[in-house]
Amino acid sequence: MFRAKRRGKGPRDAAAIYSATVDLLVLNGYEGLTIEGVAAHSKVNKTTIYRWWPSKDALLAATLEQSHILELTVADTGSLRGDLIGVVDQVVRMLTIEPGGRIARAALGGLDRPGLSFFVRMFCEKRAKQEAPIFERAKQRGELAEDVDPTMVVDLLAGAIWFRLLVRQAPMPDGYTEAIVDAVLTGLRQSS
Amino acid sequence: MFRAKRRGKGPRDAAAIYSATVDLLVLNGYEGLTIEGVAAHSKVNKTTIYRWWPSKDALLAATLEQSHILELTVADTGSLRGDLIGVVDQVVRMLTIEPGGRIARAALGGLDRPGLSFFVRMFCEKRAKQEAPIFERAKQRGELAEDVDPTMVVDLLAGAIWFRLLVRQAPMPDGYTEAIVDAVLTGLRQSS
Repeated sequence: MFRAKRRGKGPRDAAAIYSATVDLLVLNGYEGLTIEGVAAHSKVNKTTIYRWWPSKDALLAATLEQSHILELTVADTGSLRGDLIGVVDQVVRMLTIEPGGRIARAALGGLDRPGLSFFVRMFCEKRAKQEAPIFERAKQRGELAEDVDPTMVVDLLAGAIWFRLLVRQAPMPDGYTEAIVDAVLTGLRQSS
Repeated sequence: MFRAKRRGKGPRDAAAIYSATVDLLVLNGYEGLTIEGVAAHSKVNKTTIYRWWPSKDALLAATLEQSHILELTVADTGSLRGDLIGVVDQVVRMLTIEPGGRIARAALGGLDRPGLSFFVRMFCEKRAKQEAPIFERAKQRGELAEDVDPTMVVDLLAGAIWFRLLVRQAPMPDGYTEAIVDAVLTGLRQSS
């Protein structure tokens, strides 16, 4: 039933197919995305697409995987605060500049579906590996205790942005990135 | 085309319809939820359901609105830390005890759709009003500076839980609620 996987990462027309997938996702959302639609929009035969990706979730996961939209640059700014602000700002840009926001909502919409939820989990693990040096450097500098769990810091900061922009659908005030980073690093409680 | 709205909040069989909606959502997820399915499961005529809720999103929003699953109890524990732990623990329970988790994923899946995203926004605003006394009391006690924005605190704490459980799909270590509340209140940075 399964064809043997070819060499390379997709059919010759992969770029056109990925691009059509993003276009249609932005236009119609997750529920409006169909392989038939991608075939028509990319002018690639439907059976070619199905030969590589058996479902729309598989196609969407592959599209996100190769997309630059979800890429992260981790720079060494010399301080934990600066490094974290750099990462959080990229999360904000990813979710506010289209097609990133639409793609993120589509991925959230697929959390009920094994194929897509697996992709989202893998995506987060990959990012956690990219972000790891930030925390290693901070611990070497003595800015962070050895026992601080980096995943908790990412949950707090990335979670705040996702929750505010996607769930609460509230605007981002100026200086919000700096405010949440400072809250997590120095705390909100007044020392009285 | 539109019937005048009747008195009351739904048809006589509303409870059965809501209950069938939650059942089918847990069983089949958002995409598998249909008004036809709810009609069959609740044994209420399809046209009766459509008369009250013109779409599955409208029905789902009404179901969530009246559901106890999403209720929040805000107790005065005497300290900001205790009050926040109480609220965060309820978010954890909501997202980990079914049908809460499935409902939350269904709501996230509908963020692309005006009807459901409007409901999610209203739900968050309602909760923010319920949580407001926590921050007012903390400011009166001198635990929190006057200019701290409560929505940021909720973004950080609720965001961390949503992000960890739904997006990253990672387990919750013991003491996680306390750890994120303490991080936000006292900060993670080592004073060196």
